[in-house]
Amino acid sequence: MKTLIDCAMKRAKCDLVIKGAQIFNVFTGKTEKGDIAVKNGVIAGIGTGYEGEKVYDAAGLTVLPGFLDAHIHVESSTLSPEAFAQIVCAHGATGIVADPHEIVNVCGVAGAEYIKESFERLRAGGKRPLEVYLQLPSCVPATPFETSGAVIDGKETERELSRELFFGLGEVMNFPAVLAGDEDMLRKLTAAQKLGKVADGHAPALTGDALNAYLCGGMKTDHENISVEECKEKAARGMYVQVRCGSSTNNLKDVVLAADEYNFRRFITCTDDKNARDLSERGHLDDLLRRLVKEGMPAERAVMMATLNVAECYGLKGRGAVAPAYFADLTLVEDMKDFRVRAVFKEGELTAENGKALFSAERYLPKSVLGTVHVKEPSADDFKIPCKSGKLRAIAVSPESTIVTQEEIVTVPVKDGFACLEGTGLCKLAVIERHFASGRTGLGVVKGYGFRGGAIAISVAHDAHNLVVLGDSDEAMTRAVSLLKEAGGGMARVGKDGEEVFPFDIAGLMSSASAEEVIRGTGEITAHAHAMGVTEGIEAFMTLVFLSLAVIPTVRLTDYGLVNVNRFEVVPLEVE
Amino acid sequence: MKTLIDCAMKRAKCDLVIKGAQIFNVFTGKTEKGDIAVKNGVIAGIGTGYEGEKVYDAAGLTVLPGFLDAHIHVESSTLSPEAFAQIVCAHGATGIVADPHEIVNVCGVAGAEYIKESFERLRAGGKRPLEVYLQLPSCVPATPFETSGAVIDGKETERELSRELFFGLGEVMNFPAVLAGDEDMLRKLTAAQKLGKVADGHAPALTGDALNAYLCGGMKTDHENISVEECKEKAARGMYVQVRCGSSTNNLKDVVLAADEYNFRRFITCTDDKNARDLSERGHLDDLLRRLVKEGMPAERAVMMATLNVAECYGLKGRGAVAPAYFADLTLVEDMKDFRVRAVFKEGELTAENGKALFSAERYLPKSVLGTVHVKEPSADDFKIPCKSGKLRAIAVSPESTIVTQEEIVTVPVKDGFACLEGTGLCKLAVIERHFASGRTGLGVVKGYGFRGGAIAISVAHDAHNLVVLGDSDEAMTRAVSLLKEAGGGMARVGKDGEEVFPFDIAGLMSSASAEEVIRGTGEITAHAHAMGVTEGIEAFMTLVFLSLAVIPTVRLTDYGLVNVNRFEVVPLEVE
Repeated sequence: MKTLIDCAMKRAKCDLVIKGAQIFNVFTGKTEKGDIAVKNGVIAGIGTGYEGEKVYDAAGLTVLPGFLDAHIHVESSTLSPEAFAQIVCAHGATGIVADPHEIVNVCGVAGAEYIKESFERLRAGGKRPLEVYLQLPSCVPATPFETSGAVIDGKETERELSRELFFGLGEVMNFPAVLAGDEDMLRKLTAAQKLGKVADGHAPALTGDALNAYLCGGMKTDHENISVEECKEKAARGMYVQVRCGSSTNNLKDVVLAADEYNFRRFITCTDDKNARDLSERGHLDDLLRRLVKEGMPAERAVMMATLNVAECYGLKGRGAVAPAYFADLTLVEDMKDFRVRAVFKEGELTAENGKALFSAERYLPKSVLGTVHVKEPSADDFKIPCKSGKLRAIAVSPESTIVTQEEIVTVPVKDGFACLEGTGLCKLAVIERHFASGRTGLGVVKGYGFRGGAIAISVAHDAHNLVVLGDSDEAMTRAVSLLKEAGGGMARVGKDGEEVFPFDIAGLMSSASAEEVIRGTGEITAHAHAMGVTEGIEAFMTLVFLSLAVIPTVRLTDYGLVNVNRFEVVPLEVE
Repeated sequence: MKTLIDCAMKRAKCDLVIKGAQIFNVFTGKTEKGDIAVKNGVIAGIGTGYEGEKVYDAAGLTVLPGFLDAHIHVESSTLSPEAFAQIVCAHGATGIVADPHEIVNVCGVAGAEYIKESFERLRAGGKRPLEVYLQLPSCVPATPFETSGAVIDGKETERELSRELFFGLGEVMNFPAVLAGDEDMLRKLTAAQKLGKVADGHAPALTGDALNAYLCGGMKTDHENISVEECKEKAARGMYVQVRCGSSTNNLKDVVLAADEYNFRRFITCTDDKNARDLSERGHLDDLLRRLVKEGMPAERAVMMATLNVAECYGLKGRGAVAPAYFADLTLVEDMKDFRVRAVFKEGELTAENGKALFSAERYLPKSVLGTVHVKEPSADDFKIPCKSGKLRAIAVSPESTIVTQEEIVTVPVKDGFACLEGTGLCKLAVIERHFASGRTGLGVVKGYGFRGGAIAISVAHDAHNLVVLGDSDEAMTRAVSLLKEAGGGMARVGKDGEEVFPFDIAGLMSSASAEEVIRGTGEITAHAHAMGVTEGIEAFMTLVFLSLAVIPTVRLTDYGLVNVNRFEVVPLEVE
């Protein structure tokens, strides 16, 4: 503290002086010209006449506080935390609230430990390039209708959440349990409350009494806001409304209409799920800011949402502003319209410049996250669908509705007591439990996918991340599963032209390869899959990933079989 | 939590439903109509159709979050904490950040313990009517030129601040020590930082580098803002600027000009020092709001400054808003213009209605705060001023400048080696150490007071609270001191018409009598003192209280003698 004061008083030399920039002030909403003096990673002062060991010429640039992502699943990038960090730091992020929901569903708490430790080991000039606030996932498993790799109940939540490792409780998706006053769920929420840790919400379309009740459970934020009115009501009830701009969802238009001069204090930015290609090509929160401002949000409010508001919501001391005694987490952009990031400082260390991270990222690969695909040797018989009536409940997808599915009764030929899909245009779908090699397999049929001539499979499948395989040939499906078993997870394709696999060696969810390799590799296998007839508008693998997510209407497939989400129960595949 | 959720879902009956009110929403800045459901002191929901054990008809009233005072010295009311609480609760306060700077300068930490415990014992239907966040005073003693009843150095601060008793570190008035990097001061600030406790500021007119340096010491708030530009700069540097409306100081006009649509998030309300009469007759934060809005502040921003902003600044969870899961701390007013308080709820308990507190307030009077005036038996010789040259440095006061004094050299007759003030119109002033009966006495002369025909004395004297006595007769001064010694402190007057004393039995600072008695008693003795010729515009006792405050220019008197504040040193009374 003494050294910092000495630097502020110009009695001592600073470590770094950032000179000649326009500095955006989140407290006033205005930009001011000045130099920023930094000592020991902290801003000593804003003014002129400082001397520094290093001087960074920022003439022509605008200094913003480092961007903060209020909610992100790193796993959704399919990148290692290290490769992920290199990209998001280059795009201006200095902190993220990470919810390792996916990997914890595979590896248990060890998955969370891995995420934290991977980020922790990164160093740019002795500093962590990215501050990671880790949430303990609250819904492992997400539903009772699937087998995940771990179970974290109320008791374990109490124990784990008290660890310093965990900053808060991850998105509480199981809002029906909260509203019902479910004992185990309330045990988790009470633990968060007692520990004074933030619980994140996930309550799409909740309103009125139900929203009040959900808030009584202690949730402070929500990223599921699907209308202007919903954003407004949640903010009015004191929730922090997350402005989300991920790969497949964004609510920017709604936010622009919902946020006003007062309630904008309650809006914070997040990306939730963003894949490697989008992160790399479109960007991270810089992309969000660019688009948000383009949609009509005043730039100063947009920046506050990505900085000060996040810091206030989560109580991140010394973050979210460019001011004395704050950490020198700074993102230098060309302007506050396009938000092109030119340089990023984390605690006074230059971590990225002109789109390139300036820190190396040797992979940390502990055993706990490797070799996580445990399945029995598959055989073609596993995929046979016993059938008498010839009537099956199909999962219908369409380009207009790739996320929300429909249930449709289809009639199929029956041969030797089994459904025969040849010539129907339908595909078989299987979800194979992959954590304990139990052999448990759910079978279903999908209408509208268009795929033919083989099989595709993936080991990313929300939320339990069992193997999902789709095809029109039992043999090809068998082979696709074998490929994933051998690779330890990933994306596989089996066609008449041959077979290929892109491995996700980390928990079957992420690749330890470079971002470039991941983008190229997953891009290629996806293109090849699409060439096998996938209906335009459907994403060969990404749509697959969501076909087992048993919390989104209407019908889904898990290793337990077909789930009617509206009735929240397993239903028979065959209609008798 | 389960019961609360059940109430929100209307499956269970609430404890209380407040019906038919307009509810002001601090998140949106708008007012909405609805009922408020309360269970176990917490708001379960806002809506309609709730059933409650009790129903409170609030038709025609506006519900605001309970008012929060960000900085107050309870002792300045000269009331017991209990009597103080009855008044401020009736005026809409539900929480205060209390800095027991005065009593700790007399009684040490025991004084702080007393303040907290007095409030703690109050109960309205099982609830505390007032939430008290207690700061550990940072400047005991305030200067090296005076004897206070206790010394709290850096080491003791580390120890005390770690106690749950203390919420944070009280106003750091000794800003020169911070700027100089004084070791003992930084030890205190570092302790606050390590413990994550808020340190309050006090840095009048600090700007530029000095302000940056002060912030590097960790101060988060400031109530000393004496210009529009100062308010703006402090807010821009991330400080919470306190809107102050006490008995003798207010910056409402400046705040109205300084606060805008963005920086108003950084403005919070306080009263700092407010005497019993003003509290009782004008009000507390209701008075501040009324005046602030009259000066031109939009009412919605004014209310946010007195509620949400304070809660955010100090991290007061569950306070500062009317929303689900927040404590039911509610102030019901007639409108958002005059802010006439009609009812106050603290955690769902009705604590005041129509200006009257609904809780009793039996005094807690531990030995630690009683009998605190320790002086030797005074004699007229104590007040003789040895003098050869006949030239003395007088403390000059005037109605235009009762707080800031001037130094003026005066010529006086000399008789037997002593100054003789008869017929000069000057008064003698003495400050007598009263904590350890050391007999240490500082002597001075005052010009411009107008007082004649006896003496007045008081045991409230910032910041060390020694006895201050002023008069034109050594005998009367002797008697006045004797009266205070007998009474254990208070206000005393000795005139040709007789003598009187109003005791401050609590630490020589506060009276255990009722507010009515205190207002009447102190009013009477003050009126009698004024009748002894006190210059119009000077307050007989209050001006006296500040004549020993050795941090405000230009010359002051302490038990060490005359202090030149600008030179920050003790200077001789006589000019040779």
